[in-house]
Amino acid sequence: MLEPMHYELRVIGIVESPLVDLAAAPAQGDEGELDAWIAMESQYLPAMRDLVVGERVIVLTWLDRGDRDVLEVHPRGDPTRPRLGVFSTRSPDRPNPIGLHEVEILAIDGPRLRVRNLEAISGTPVLDVKPVLGPVGTR
Amino acid sequence: MLEPMHYELRVIGIVESPLVDLAAAPAQGDEGELDAWIAMESQYLPAMRDLVVGERVIVLTWLDRGDRDVLEVHPRGDPTRPRLGVFSTRSPDRPNPIGLHEVEILAIDGPRLRVRNLEAISGTPVLDVKPVLGPVGTR
Repeated sequence: MLEPMHYELRVIGIVESPLVDLAAAPAQGDEGELDAWIAMESQYLPAMRDLVVGERVIVLTWLDRGDRDVLEVHPRGDPTRPRLGVFSTRSPDRPNPIGLHEVEILAIDGPRLRVRNLEAISGTPVLDVKPVLGPVGTR
Repeated sequence: MLEPMHYELRVIGIVESPLVDLAAAPAQGDEGELDAWIAMESQYLPAMRDLVVGERVIVLTWLDRGDRDVLEVHPRGDPTRPRLGVFSTRSPDRPNPIGLHEVEILAIDGPRLRVRNLEAISGTPVLDVKPVLGPVGTR
């Protein structure tokens, strides 16, 4: 039933972080303090213009080391735990390895965003930034 | 600094909904009751196997009618409201028009998921399903 559809992602920025080792990455950001820069491509400055320090946003990343052909995993990589379908986990191994990261903006320097506690290794491509929705109807 | 990177999305399913008109789409799902089916490709059944009725999940879609070259919009399409950078809005017009939809699973029928209140028009490609995270460390 599905027509062949080809959608290409645009990398809008890159994570710059002290975290370079996948094995050291915390499984969820709130388990380890880890601040990072997001270096956005300067062409996206108009899209960033209303971001403010102190705001919480959702950063979408492309977890480019994920295995896109894996459909079941041991949660958190622990082989003693029963395997789960990947749609019941946040594993980076999944058909489209898109990461969701709710973070606080700590600083803004031109096209660079400093954010608190981003659980993605340095070099991870960034796809989008969205507001955490507040009360309905506010934007 | 960015190397040219090309990441292609895999369409894993399609939204089937009575909502066929973009103009009738509620801007956020909790403003209008709108249940829909997600027809997944059967090859992804192993990834779905631990989803359960009553669970809340985050569905990621590709809002394929979004204009990828728009960087500023009037919020909610209202020309009387000042323009905002798209990263401060949930507009489908953005460089990577990925939609995030937190929904409740109402029914599961093989590769088909019935979900409550999905604000995406019929035919919208589905990219991923993720758990809404509970307490840290649970998966």
